[in-house]
Amino acid sequence: MLHAVIMAGGSGTRFWPASRAAKPKQLLELAGHESMLRQTVDRLGDLVTPAQTLIVTNQRLVEPIVAQFPELPGESIVGEPCKRDTAPCIGLAALLVRRNDPDATMAVLPADHVIRSADRFQDALEQAAHLVDAEPDRIVTFGIRPSYPAEIFGYIQRGSRIDVRNGDAPAFMVKRFREKPDVTTATEYLSSGDFYWNSGIFVWKAKTILDALSQRQPEMLAHLQAIGDAWGTPQQAEVLEKEFTAIKGISIDYAVMEHAKNVAVIEAPYDWDDLGSWQALGRLLGTDHHDNTVVGRHLGIDTTGTIVRTNNEHLVVTIGLKDCLVVHTENATLVANKHDEEAVREVVKQLEARGWKEYL
Amino acid sequence: MLHAVIMAGGSGTRFWPASRAAKPKQLLELAGHESMLRQTVDRLGDLVTPAQTLIVTNQRLVEPIVAQFPELPGESIVGEPCKRDTAPCIGLAALLVRRNDPDATMAVLPADHVIRSADRFQDALEQAAHLVDAEPDRIVTFGIRPSYPAEIFGYIQRGSRIDVRNGDAPAFMVKRFREKPDVTTATEYLSSGDFYWNSGIFVWKAKTILDALSQRQPEMLAHLQAIGDAWGTPQQAEVLEKEFTAIKGISIDYAVMEHAKNVAVIEAPYDWDDLGSWQALGRLLGTDHHDNTVVGRHLGIDTTGTIVRTNNEHLVVTIGLKDCLVVHTENATLVANKHDEEAVREVVKQLEARGWKEYL
Repeated sequence: MLHAVIMAGGSGTRFWPASRAAKPKQLLELAGHESMLRQTVDRLGDLVTPAQTLIVTNQRLVEPIVAQFPELPGESIVGEPCKRDTAPCIGLAALLVRRNDPDATMAVLPADHVIRSADRFQDALEQAAHLVDAEPDRIVTFGIRPSYPAEIFGYIQRGSRIDVRNGDAPAFMVKRFREKPDVTTATEYLSSGDFYWNSGIFVWKAKTILDALSQRQPEMLAHLQAIGDAWGTPQQAEVLEKEFTAIKGISIDYAVMEHAKNVAVIEAPYDWDDLGSWQALGRLLGTDHHDNTVVGRHLGIDTTGTIVRTNNEHLVVTIGLKDCLVVHTENATLVANKHDEEAVREVVKQLEARGWKEYL
Repeated sequence: MLHAVIMAGGSGTRFWPASRAAKPKQLLELAGHESMLRQTVDRLGDLVTPAQTLIVTNQRLVEPIVAQFPELPGESIVGEPCKRDTAPCIGLAALLVRRNDPDATMAVLPADHVIRSADRFQDALEQAAHLVDAEPDRIVTFGIRPSYPAEIFGYIQRGSRIDVRNGDAPAFMVKRFREKPDVTTATEYLSSGDFYWNSGIFVWKAKTILDALSQRQPEMLAHLQAIGDAWGTPQQAEVLEKEFTAIKGISIDYAVMEHAKNVAVIEAPYDWDDLGSWQALGRLLGTDHHDNTVVGRHLGIDTTGTIVRTNNEHLVVTIGLKDCLVVHTENATLVANKHDEEAVREVVKQLEARGWKEYL
């Protein structure tokens, strides 16, 4: 049976002002009527039981997530005491998964991506689990066929084809992971046909990732093992705090993936978007005949290429805007040039510097 | 003793969303901590007593204005049943003023202009009253020395100089009124030195304006006289409704001023702004070193030439904006290119057409 580890610790600052410390992106209904996290869990369907679901988040969010997931056992929601990037998060999850199921295969899933449809996604996970069963030291990733020369995603270069079962999606050995390219390189990738967008979803044996950490990050693994040893004892919280804080943060890509040998990529049979920033809302929700994407009550005059997000009570009127972003929330409004949206993260830093905590 | 007639019936739609039907521009604190109307009344100081102050507004605003001016007798606030432009408003006021004071001199003042300082303004009104005393059929206007070739104001061309008392402002006969010019013409006006901006403030005998209406607008005057005859009787409201509605709307400029013979202009010794639109807020409140004008809590990144108005709780963040206008109110936000602001009036029309009354 497959285990699911859902990484739900992000701060989502690119989605300020909708995303706040107490209710970041993964807890928002950005795409659809359910939170991103709820959709991530529901998307797994019957493939993963509640007892085999683990949500790793930051400590502040444990309470709201527990409230949002009454069907999950309390121990399924783990709060990190501090941010240490993805490798420690995944390593800890692998330890906890292996405690109950030494041979466990686990899928690692970001909590804030958009994936359609659930059926095809479950099929792909099942296929990945099958590929891991066939070669237990295998790491399986999912590649998205690029539709444009995106500079905002990492890429996976595929190698030789892997035999798959009838009806399965095409699968390949991974030749190389590539960081976010410039547009020229991205255009080459696109035309070569050998490159996928890296969707950041992995399937592997818990043992595989722990072995890799043991080799590449022995210090990190020692801290994580100390946490694992104290897990379920009265010292759990104290040890978690102390040992996790002592870890040096690093991403799973740098810590493991770039050095891994037996990595496969399944060509994802589902639609995917990382919903990385407000601009993604346009891709996701589509645009009207003025190229605008609107959520909530809006009146636009001479407005094109603009993303507006408000609710159904608070009216946003735009006049003479082109390629802008207007996000209304209860106590803060963002008006930005759509192409400057990286600066949204800068806003959060400046708010912190000014001590304007009510907007964080 | 001078009478003051304050025209407070405007809808202020250019200041949407701050200005609403139930609380239009003249009732807002746009410049300073008091409403424009309150400042207009207070600016008169001891020159005009409460009993000699008349506020003409629309019927819906009588109640809030009565509440805002406890010092004024109830009959000092007159509500028009419908919009009929300035001539009927001024004609009715002249009739009501003359009932109590057949020889009355009255100043007609818009309720939504910015004037500094009150002392110099009172001096100018007193000088105007003196000029009317000297020639009872005289109409006195106030001209503002233009500081730039404005296309947004009407102009007054001055003629021969009128002798004034020691210490008085310069005064001239009016040669001609000029409508809002294009920029080339405005530039010529500016360099000629013979042109003033028309500030829309008049001083005259009530008799003078009624005589002029009798000559030029006999039908209007007949309606107004029917209202005057019923004033103070149980039929007042009914007759006002019927007769005022029957009047054909026309501005005092077209109805009277353009045909008037004995018109003087005093070179205003005070600073003036008609606060005609949001852009005026920049002129009025000044700009910071990024050329922005900000009221309320704002964080700007790469933002220039922009006007932001919010309160001290609701944060507005702007990124990569140039020459924009952002106005936050409780249930509506306007984001506009600053130069498209004439379209703000169009917004109000579209809101009416959609039946979105909560934003009007």
